[in-house]
Amino acid sequence: MGEGRLSELGALAKASGEKAFLVYDPFLKGSETLEKIIANLKNNGVAVIEFNDISPNPRNTSIDAGTELCLKEKCDVVVAIGGGSAIDSAKANALVATNGGECWEYTERAGEEVTRPTKRGLPLIVVPTTAGTGTEATSFAVVNNPAEKRKCTIITPYIYPDIALVDPLIMTTIPSMITALTGLDTFAHALESYISVNATPISEMLSLYSIELFAKSIRKAVNEGENVEARDQMALACGLGGAAIGTAGVTLPHALGQPLGALTDAPHGGTLAACFPQIIEWTLPYAEDKLSKVAGILDPSLDRDLSDTEKSSQLPRILRELYQDLHVDVSFGKYGLKESEIEALADLCFVGFLQDIKAHPKPVTREDVIYLINKCM
Amino acid sequence: MGEGRLSELGALAKASGEKAFLVYDPFLKGSETLEKIIANLKNNGVAVIEFNDISPNPRNTSIDAGTELCLKEKCDVVVAIGGGSAIDSAKANALVATNGGECWEYTERAGEEVTRPTKRGLPLIVVPTTAGTGTEATSFAVVNNPAEKRKCTIITPYIYPDIALVDPLIMTTIPSMITALTGLDTFAHALESYISVNATPISEMLSLYSIELFAKSIRKAVNEGENVEARDQMALACGLGGAAIGTAGVTLPHALGQPLGALTDAPHGGTLAACFPQIIEWTLPYAEDKLSKVAGILDPSLDRDLSDTEKSSQLPRILRELYQDLHVDVSFGKYGLKESEIEALADLCFVGFLQDIKAHPKPVTREDVIYLINKCM
Repeated sequence: MGEGRLSELGALAKASGEKAFLVYDPFLKGSETLEKIIANLKNNGVAVIEFNDISPNPRNTSIDAGTELCLKEKCDVVVAIGGGSAIDSAKANALVATNGGECWEYTERAGEEVTRPTKRGLPLIVVPTTAGTGTEATSFAVVNNPAEKRKCTIITPYIYPDIALVDPLIMTTIPSMITALTGLDTFAHALESYISVNATPISEMLSLYSIELFAKSIRKAVNEGENVEARDQMALACGLGGAAIGTAGVTLPHALGQPLGALTDAPHGGTLAACFPQIIEWTLPYAEDKLSKVAGILDPSLDRDLSDTEKSSQLPRILRELYQDLHVDVSFGKYGLKESEIEALADLCFVGFLQDIKAHPKPVTREDVIYLINKCM
Repeated sequence: MGEGRLSELGALAKASGEKAFLVYDPFLKGSETLEKIIANLKNNGVAVIEFNDISPNPRNTSIDAGTELCLKEKCDVVVAIGGGSAIDSAKANALVATNGGECWEYTERAGEEVTRPTKRGLPLIVVPTTAGTGTEATSFAVVNNPAEKRKCTIITPYIYPDIALVDPLIMTTIPSMITALTGLDTFAHALESYISVNATPISEMLSLYSIELFAKSIRKAVNEGENVEARDQMALACGLGGAAIGTAGVTLPHALGQPLGALTDAPHGGTLAACFPQIIEWTLPYAEDKLSKVAGILDPSLDRDLSDTEKSSQLPRILRELYQDLHVDVSFGKYGLKESEIEALADLCFVGFLQDIKAHPKPVTREDVIYLINKCM
């Protein structure tokens, strides 16, 4: 991590290989950042094969086309630059390049046979351009299979990036709305892992520190985009959030937000933001101690003498005020969810995200989910 | 980590080998804990070779005798139970058993040739009985060489324990004074790594979380020894402190306390406690932001509107009050340091602990050290 460290990319890649498979988000095409990266790789004697067929939910077919190109060109190191989709795509490329087959085989699909990778992928260096997903620090890669209408996840320690090169300078040009929504994704990872029934003392530490950095920096990162310190702290918050969900997983907001994103193509962070205050309000009595701690971090002016019950009950209000400061005004309805789709969305939650629902600190029924979706419209 | 997990030791050892080299503190001889451990190992089909020639500062000659026995008996897993000395001794045994030679060769001695280990040691499981050194989570083992009158440290990633089995139940019988002084050692690791010039965002997180757990639990652990939750939190604080110094190292208190311990055989935690308030007072203007944060954690009743300068200046008072609650009343003079030895102690600091002095946030001269030692008499 550090300002300007992107310039080390070429030397780091050279230490691992001679020919880089460079995966990047298509919006970077022609950008100064991308040109610098390619020049930096070539100046360090690393040949470059480019690949930018990346969609917001990376498709299994595109990923497999990437792996094929990577193998055909005999690339010996994978470099990814972009948001979560580009990095997840590259993580899958690196893994499948050494383990063979197609990426979908390796995804976790309850009740179906999963191919288990037997070795590490190609050396992998990732450069996140947003502070959001935390994928630079996780053992996950999400794969979308449009033919099967399913999004599933590869989960294996063999898929961790070897190096995450995190340079806040390249984040200073991210537009404020993307900064806000990806930042709220980071907050979601930190908060959900914190209240997860699978939290451990170490994951709680990662979650809390991530929330502290978020609280200190998100307004500045959104409203003063060129504030490098704020970008730096959000980038760290993001990596810590990724590490926390690596242990404790996520809970109900992701279980609602993920399938809403698949249904409506709404931005991931936005789908989470749209259900946070409602889910927290509904969850309150089951996680008062933890939610009161989060409330105190997000609003240090809260009276210290308040009870946990009083303090935690302030959290939905604190979040709504934060959204105003970040100019985030979202709802499931605004993202295009129709009343007639609510039942179907509830079913999708239980089919695809049962593990997240089970990790929630308050037991969740189908009726609860329908009640909450209605609240979020 | 967890209450009662000591019972898993036998199965964990069996997963690594058939014959355990069991290193333990001599005070455990005949104890119920040790008998349980030996029975647990044997019941899981693991033969046991015992070794308990452990002194408070583990001697190179004893360690080498241990390694010889371990090799002669063809032990294939090392198990340690005890305080920092027993664990450090076992860490050195496991490393030298696979790398050959004598333990002293592997210690860092500025300007002398050091043998670098080329492979991991034997599988190593450690069971700490105190919450203090954090050695269960570090890549260090301290070795005392009485013939050369030097204490030096083996530093290599190959020496990390494979498993640290931390069971707060075995800590509930530790006497209150040992609990207090080892607890202050943990606090020293957390605070010194936090203010170290080598601190990183991640090490700062580890340090701060360790200090939070310490603040919440040390009084209970000392004054209600059987409080398992307090023992558990101190054990976690200890491991986090170890992990923090693994990155950021320690600073001036350790540079004074270590050679004082070598001179007078005073307990390590006590030597640190005896110089903390004085060193902090002297350091204040160089680390106001961090020390004010520590003051706020240790004394949550501090007025939040105080400036960093005001808040940090309360820290020496807060520590002195904490010492009273822990019944810790120590000074360099009480530990037997004579006025006539002050100059020699100052020299020892600069000879053996220059790296710690250099990591201190305020520049340190020999005159400063002499001034501070006088303050600590």
